[in-house]
Amino acid sequence: MAGSAALFPGNAFSKPAPLFGQDEIGLSKWELETPSLCLDLDIMESNLKKAHENLKGTSIGVRPHTKTHKCPALAKMQMDAGAVGVCTAKLSESQVMLENGISEVLMTGVNISTAKIRKAMQLRKTHSGFIQAVDNKQNVRDLQEAAKEAGIIADVVVDLDVIRRSGVPTGLPALELAQLIDQSPNLKFMGILAYDGGAQHIKGYQKRLERTIQTFEPVSETHKMMVQSGLNVEIFSGAGTGTYNMMADVPGFTDVQVGSYLFMDTQYMAIGSERNESLYDDFDPSLTVLASVINSNHPNRLITDAGAKSLTINKPSGMVIGEPGFSYNAGSDEYGTVTYETANKTYKTGDLLEVIVPHCDPAVNLYDRIYGIRKGKVESILPVMARGHSR
Amino acid sequence: MAGSAALFPGNAFSKPAPLFGQDEIGLSKWELETPSLCLDLDIMESNLKKAHENLKGTSIGVRPHTKTHKCPALAKMQMDAGAVGVCTAKLSESQVMLENGISEVLMTGVNISTAKIRKAMQLRKTHSGFIQAVDNKQNVRDLQEAAKEAGIIADVVVDLDVIRRSGVPTGLPALELAQLIDQSPNLKFMGILAYDGGAQHIKGYQKRLERTIQTFEPVSETHKMMVQSGLNVEIFSGAGTGTYNMMADVPGFTDVQVGSYLFMDTQYMAIGSERNESLYDDFDPSLTVLASVINSNHPNRLITDAGAKSLTINKPSGMVIGEPGFSYNAGSDEYGTVTYETANKTYKTGDLLEVIVPHCDPAVNLYDRIYGIRKGKVESILPVMARGHSR
Ligand SMILES: Cc1ncc(COP(=O)(O)O)c(C=O)c1O
Ligand SMILES: Cc1ncc(COP(=O)(O)O)c(C=O)c1O
Repeated sequence: MAGSAALFPGNAFSKPAPLFGQDEIGLSKWELETPSLCLDLDIMESNLKKAHENLKGTSIGVRPHTKTHKCPALAKMQMDAGAVGVCTAKLSESQVMLENGISEVLMTGVNISTAKIRKAMQLRKTHSGFIQAVDNKQNVRDLQEAAKEAGIIADVVVDLDVIRRSGVPTGLPALELAQLIDQSPNLKFMGILAYDGGAQHIKGYQKRLERTIQTFEPVSETHKMMVQSGLNVEIFSGAGTGTYNMMADVPGFTDVQVGSYLFMDTQYMAIGSERNESLYDDFDPSLTVLASVINSNHPNRLITDAGAKSLTINKPSGMVIGEPGFSYNAGSDEYGTVTYETANKTYKTGDLLEVIVPHCDPAVNLYDRIYGIRKGKVESILPVMARGHSR
Repeated sequence: MAGSAALFPGNAFSKPAPLFGQDEIGLSKWELETPSLCLDLDIMESNLKKAHENLKGTSIGVRPHTKTHKCPALAKMQMDAGAVGVCTAKLSESQVMLENGISEVLMTGVNISTAKIRKAMQLRKTHSGFIQAVDNKQNVRDLQEAAKEAGIIADVVVDLDVIRRSGVPTGLPALELAQLIDQSPNLKFMGILAYDGGAQHIKGYQKRLERTIQTFEPVSETHKMMVQSGLNVEIFSGAGTGTYNMMADVPGFTDVQVGSYLFMDTQYMAIGSERNESLYDDFDPSLTVLASVINSNHPNRLITDAGAKSLTINKPSGMVIGEPGFSYNAGSDEYGTVTYETANKTYKTGDLLEVIVPHCDPAVNLYDRIYGIRKGKVESILPVMARGHSR
């Protein structure tokens, strides 16, 4: 075994110095090699502000989900802008945030394996702001045991089932789960999560609102039951970019877990806002991929160097800025194909296109760095440190 | 600028030691934390052999495409098994291969930007086995200039347009391009590429064969024109996993650029082979993602921790080994959803599933490591060193 293991030791191959990237600060974004993932910092900062501004006058806080950006530098900006904390999806993502200066981290996913639960408790031991989610009784018992073993009292929230994905059923099962936590000497019950992933991308503000009100009826009922039984429901978190402004009337609701609001993407642009049925304009697209035209031999057709490995194949597909007549197909791993009837200029091989990403979360998860662009110039390089951290 | 750049210096954040991965050699694969990308080494090695065996008796070599695995360790195995060289899609991928002991690298994509062309020539300067592709005259002139500047004679192949993606039109335009290269003092014309990306996944051997014969008519004609005009057509490369065994009758054809054959995936399994219309069984699936059941509250439904960020959303979707009745939906970023009518056992939270990936190339591109598994145990950890190298 040792012999064959030595066939491919982890360090027999060395990552060469990157071909590009040493001297990029200060470059025009149009000088970057492609494909590059770019973030317009002015637009991003405006989105950051808008989330708080649009919630002014309500008692609702912002707890941004870092699954979107996987980037401690951006999480820090969100905290500085007034977030009550951040959310994470996975344990390895939580670790990256906690060990890079983000002290308030609520992990919305559950840890099931013994190894993950143990590591989570080790993280909690050194980071008092780490909150874990559970959605079943065995998991509560496992967390209790691991917290005891680690010699800590761990903060725990209950994830409620709203879209038959994660979560414990609302009502009595949720109440009993919360009570079990409350009775566990090494766990502290902190509240509930209720993220309606099915509501976020419903087209039309009114339809989204109706769905959200409907979803939140049993959730609110559960919240009430918990409060009435004297449980400590400090946290009542949920909602995403599509429903963040629909929570003000939900009694006890504390914060929205918005993720995509920072970047936006064509999926969210398509859902429509309260004032604009055809374009969701509460936030503006800040995240783009720069691509090069690498073949322009055929009429009404351009081939680019940004395919599925640079943009994902999510739909609606990427949108080329300044060219509403372009249809972008990223179905090929290494190539993008633009087809069009009308274009605002004549394109040739070597020209650059700036593409709004289809779905920001998995697109960012393809890149090791985001270029922070201000007024067209590279101001910063943001390492996507939790990229690929899906464990 | 310097001040704001300092806001997010690349080194202000440190990648923490990975939560898992230090002591995994020798573990049972069922002990790995999930999601994990696993490669059955016996099956992979058998695929590796089969590609050569199935081409025995022909004059056709194997030039595997490393866009599939992005892993020098696997490229080395392919070379050791008798490959004539490997292919790469992008310049940064080429660099990773060349600088990790893979000496024969044919880059099938073009370099257009001045910076990329210059770096390509620098790579060629230190690695004599690096061959570059071109598909337009301006690019030939740019390469000539850069090769001259670097003081080298660079090997170049012409990429032929077969699916209106990359490439120069077959016939006269291709011939003229080859002649232009031949006349460029710092370039050496080496041959042609003709990859029919549209043929590979056509269902049914006969249909694939017909399409391939049709596609190769103008390609072969072009090849003949080049040979007749005295050009050095050492390389005549093309075909992928779906058509690798259809090239024997193409005069002058030298090698197949198979990529997926090593891993397989549900997309390729679905195309059917010559002997089996419903399952492509020339090669066997060696690449899987291990996922955990993290919620089993609902009947005929399991939630896993492997969603779009672990499997991609390609179709047909992932296949759970041993459970033909399972339908796997990876449409959620962080969660997979299995629905079924029949199951071979009762599943509960914490159980593991092994999923054949939908499309191997973009799936591998999500992971930093592949676990090499032999007889159920972790034998090696293969770093996916060119992961994310799309430039
Ligand atoms: C639990 C949870 N909370 C919050 C979010 C963020 O949602 P959005 O990007 O729609 O704002 C997500 C995204 O999938 C999520 O899964
Ligand atoms: C130019 C080229 N050659 C070879 C391949 C490998 O093809 P396959 O994985 O179908 O064997 C690809 C894959 O997309 C390709 O783009």
